[in-house]
Amino acid sequence: MNGKRIYMQEVATRDGFQIEQQFIPTDDKIALIDALSQAGYAKIEVTSFTSPSAIPALRDADELMARIARVPGVVYTVLVPNARGAERAMAARADEFNLVMSVSETHNIANLRMTREQSYQGLKSVIDAARGTEVAINVSLSTSFGCPMEGPVAHTEVLAWADRFAQLDVRGVTLCDTTGMADPRAAYELTHAFKARFPQLELTLHFHNTRGMGGANVLTAIEAGANRFDASLGGLGGCPYAPGATGNICTEDTAHMLDAMGYDTGLMLDRVIAAARQLPALIGHDIPGQVAKAGLIAERHAPPADFAAIRERALAREAQ
Amino acid sequence: MNGKRIYMQEVATRDGFQIEQQFIPTDDKIALIDALSQAGYAKIEVTSFTSPSAIPALRDADELMARIARVPGVVYTVLVPNARGAERAMAARADEFNLVMSVSETHNIANLRMTREQSYQGLKSVIDAARGTEVAINVSLSTSFGCPMEGPVAHTEVLAWADRFAQLDVRGVTLCDTTGMADPRAAYELTHAFKARFPQLELTLHFHNTRGMGGANVLTAIEAGANRFDASLGGLGGCPYAPGATGNICTEDTAHMLDAMGYDTGLMLDRVIAAARQLPALIGHDIPGQVAKAGLIAERHAPPADFAAIRERALAREAQ
Repeated sequence: MNGKRIYMQEVATRDGFQIEQQFIPTDDKIALIDALSQAGYAKIEVTSFTSPSAIPALRDADELMARIARVPGVVYTVLVPNARGAERAMAARADEFNLVMSVSETHNIANLRMTREQSYQGLKSVIDAARGTEVAINVSLSTSFGCPMEGPVAHTEVLAWADRFAQLDVRGVTLCDTTGMADPRAAYELTHAFKARFPQLELTLHFHNTRGMGGANVLTAIEAGANRFDASLGGLGGCPYAPGATGNICTEDTAHMLDAMGYDTGLMLDRVIAAARQLPALIGHDIPGQVAKAGLIAERHAPPADFAAIRERALAREAQ
Repeated sequence: MNGKRIYMQEVATRDGFQIEQQFIPTDDKIALIDALSQAGYAKIEVTSFTSPSAIPALRDADELMARIARVPGVVYTVLVPNARGAERAMAARADEFNLVMSVSETHNIANLRMTREQSYQGLKSVIDAARGTEVAINVSLSTSFGCPMEGPVAHTEVLAWADRFAQLDVRGVTLCDTTGMADPRAAYELTHAFKARFPQLELTLHFHNTRGMGGANVLTAIEAGANRFDASLGGLGGCPYAPGATGNICTEDTAHMLDAMGYDTGLMLDRVIAAARQLPALIGHDIPGQVAKAGLIAERHAPPADFAAIRERALAREAQ
C-alpha cells in the first residue's frame, strides 16, 4: 500500500455550507477556497448553481467562481441541477459539471421532484449541450448504497444507471452514500463491481459518516480499487434523516488516516487542519472532525509538570 | 466473513464513567449493567478497584459488584491496580482481574507513578496470589500503539512485555490504543504479530476513536485474526491529551457495522441502543456514538408528507 496515490476532493463549501442556517459571507468563502487551493486537493466542489431561492446559502455561486484564485492542477467542479444551472456554470468557467440524480425513485421524487427518467433526460440534455466544450461531466448517483425510504438498492440498479451515463461519454461517476447506509462490505462489493464494469470511468466514492462507518468504508473501497474520495473539511454536511448525526466523511481525518498508513493523498495536512480549525468561527458551531481537535498522531505531548519529581520518588522506592 | 463470531466487551461503566465529573448514582449503574447483562456481551468490565480517593467516580465498586444480577456466560471483569485492589476484587467475586501497565516508560511513570519494572513486579505478585483460585487474569498493555509523550512504541517492545505475562500463564492480553494513535495498518501488523507469537492467549483489542480511525482499526485487526474487542456504550471515555476528542470506540456503532457486514457479534443491538440512548440523561451530556442518533441502516423513513402530490405533479409533466 505504500505510496499509492489517493485523490482527495473537497466538498465542504458545497455539500457542507448548503445546509448551514447562517449565510457565510462571500469573502470568507473565497478566503477558505483559496486556502484549500494551496493544500494539494485533486478537486474542489466550489458551489452549486441551483436556484438562489432553493438554496439561499449558495446564492453567491457566480461571484464565488469569478473571484477565487484558481491553482493549476486543481479541478474546480460545481453542482449543476439543470440547463439553467449549466448556463451559469459555463459562464463561470467551471472545469467540471457535477450532475446529480438518485438511483432510488422515491428519493429522486422527494428530493428533486422528478422521476428518475425525467432527471436522466434533463441531465442528458445538459451533457449534450456541453459536448464539444472543454467542460468535463461527472454524474453523482445519490443513494447508491441504499435509500432511507425504499431501503436497499440493488447493485445492478446502480450499475444500470451508471451505464446509461457511461454511454454518454461522461468522465466520471460518483457513487454517493447519501445518508450513511454503506457498510464496509457493501463499499467493497459495489466498488469492485463498478471498477470491473467501467474501467474507463473516473470513479469517486462519496461516503457519509452518519453511522460511524466512513473511515472503514474508505479502506475497503481502496481495497476494491477506488482511489478517489469526496470528503468535507471538518466533517461538515449532514443528513436530513438523522438530526444530530455527523455528515460527510471528514477530509482531515480521512487524509490523516491514509497518510499514517503510507498512502499518498497529495494533501498538505497542516494546511487542511489549519483551515478546519477556522470553521467553528466561520459557521458558528462545533465540527464533527476529530483530528482538528486531537491533533496528528505524530504530535508529542509534554509529560506532566511534576514528572521529574514523580520519577525520582519511583526510583527512590526501587533503591530501598 | 459471514457469521464469524466476534466477541464484544463493554467498558463504559469503568473506562467511560471513571472520567465523568458528576458521580453516577450506584442504583443507576446497577440498572445499566443489569440491562447490558441481558444484551449478549461476552464480557463486561464493571468497575475498578482503585483507591476511592484516586477515582471517586468508581468509589462504589464493592457495592456494585455485590448487587448486579450476573448472567451466566457473561464474564464480569474488574480493573485491579495492586494487591489491595486484588483483595477487594476477590472478595467481590470478580470473574477476572484486568491488570494494567503501560509499555511506555514515560506513560507508566506519569500515569501509574511507577517504573514499568515496578508495575510488572506488582502485577506479578497479584497474579501469583490469584494462582489456584478461580479468577482469571487479563493484562492490559497501555500505549501499545504509541505513547503521546514518547511517540512510536516498537512492536517488539509490546510483544516482549506480553511475553513476560504469557510466562505467568495469564489468560489474556489486551493491546490498548490508549490515546487513539493506532492507524489501520498498525492495527493489522501488531495484531498479526501478536497472534503469530501467542496463539494460546485470549487477545483483546482496545481502540479509541480519538482521531476517527476506530472503526477502520477494528476491521483490519479482524483481518489479522482478532475476534475480541473492548468498546464503550455511546462511545464514552476520553483522552486526557485530546480535550473535546471522542473516547473509546462506540459499542453500538462497532456492533452495527460488524452486523451489517455479516459478522456475529452476539449483541442484541436494539437493547444496546436503548441503553445508549439513556446515557445523556444519566451523565448529563451528549454522547459521541452515531447509531444511537441516526438509527440502524435497516430503519426506514417515511417520504415527505406531500410526497403523493409531488409525484403527481412530476407524472403530469411526463404526460404533457
